[in-house]
Amino acid sequence: MAESPVIPIIGGTGALGAGLARRWARAGASIAIGSRSVERAEEAAAKLRSEVPEANAEGLLNEDAAGRAEIVFLTVPFRAQSENLNNLREALRPGQILVDCTVPLAAAVSGKATRSLGVWQGSAAQQAQEMVPDGVTVVAALHTVGAPTLANADAELDEDVPVCGDRKADKARVAHLIELIPGLRAVNAGPLEMARIVEQLTPMLISVNSRYKTHAGIRFTGLPDGTHWQ
Amino acid sequence: MAESPVIPIIGGTGALGAGLARRWARAGASIAIGSRSVERAEEAAAKLRSEVPEANAEGLLNEDAAGRAEIVFLTVPFRAQSENLNNLREALRPGQILVDCTVPLAAAVSGKATRSLGVWQGSAAQQAQEMVPDGVTVVAALHTVGAPTLANADAELDEDVPVCGDRKADKARVAHLIELIPGLRAVNAGPLEMARIVEQLTPMLISVNSRYKTHAGIRFTGLPDGTHWQ
Repeated sequence: MAESPVIPIIGGTGALGAGLARRWARAGASIAIGSRSVERAEEAAAKLRSEVPEANAEGLLNEDAAGRAEIVFLTVPFRAQSENLNNLREALRPGQILVDCTVPLAAAVSGKATRSLGVWQGSAAQQAQEMVPDGVTVVAALHTVGAPTLANADAELDEDVPVCGDRKADKARVAHLIELIPGLRAVNAGPLEMARIVEQLTPMLISVNSRYKTHAGIRFTGLPDGTHWQ
Repeated sequence: MAESPVIPIIGGTGALGAGLARRWARAGASIAIGSRSVERAEEAAAKLRSEVPEANAEGLLNEDAAGRAEIVFLTVPFRAQSENLNNLREALRPGQILVDCTVPLAAAVSGKATRSLGVWQGSAAQQAQEMVPDGVTVVAALHTVGAPTLANADAELDEDVPVCGDRKADKARVAHLIELIPGLRAVNAGPLEMARIVEQLTPMLISVNSRYKTHAGIRFTGLPDGTHWQ
């Protein structure tokens, strides 16, 4: 399992989900691509297999994808986050970890992508924690890794992924999956409430990107060498 | 002037101000250390001269320090920001740039340093912009550079400084001063309203620091090489 995990991606046909799927497939993970439409999920899986010949990928309804492993990634736009979480209410089981990658960009309501919306619970991740069934734990991660960079097969990643969650053991399991992707280092950013800040990194990076015509990422300097997750 | 600028630091006897003063003095800038108490300002200037023998430093009342150069740094805690800005109302002149370094940590009201306060105007920097006299421009910067790292003469800096402001020319002038300090790179993070996000980086770093027992900084990866401020 640690050698070849299965990674379900809810919204795996979107830009972020597809980019992550591609990177994870290249790293040897099996991907369960979820979508509201099984046809689109199967199409995306076929595309992934054509791009990454060694890919082990299947296309499924989101609810079916969510059952494929204990750790499930939610990569939908903020506009669709609540709807997806409602649809997953019967699918998620106690003990599962939902990794929420949602960023509440004002673009969700036709505002700017350099601005964000206030979320009543404090962050999109905390909204997710409120909406998942009892016993499911939310971890927030992967907000700052750009879909265009993930999708570009020639682009080498070189950035950190702040991970927020209330239990270090959960974050460590998610970190293990994130670090399967070469060039990504998972950093423990604190409890889930820190998603209020980490989700804001994305509009900041979008602002920087527009000024530097690039796809910037985040690094923390000054951290000790080696892995921090044991 | 570009060779040996004068840098006024309001609140220059505090941890951040003193740390910046030390680094700038070592880089050859002349420092005007401001305080509410001229005695404490003079003490801090004497201490700086004893630590950095080549330092050109004077201690002044904040209001007097603010007149020493066009670009003035405000490095007081959030708790004291409004009071300081009130006191500077007669001292600041049109055409000056006030560089606000304030972070609205919840620690200001005996809360946690990993949490922040909501500021009515959106950010401490936007509050500053509302409070300065007409014609004075606020630029936000230097939130994420840690006072302990600045104060440690042996610590090499290796981090970026996101700079927010509504005019690129103003940010470029501030960036020039920031980049006098070896190891700091100023990054254009967008208009002043982006201080809403940039000010939040500090509580995030404090959270990371407590987990990794370090003094972390921020880097943007993927930016083009060379200076971006011409």
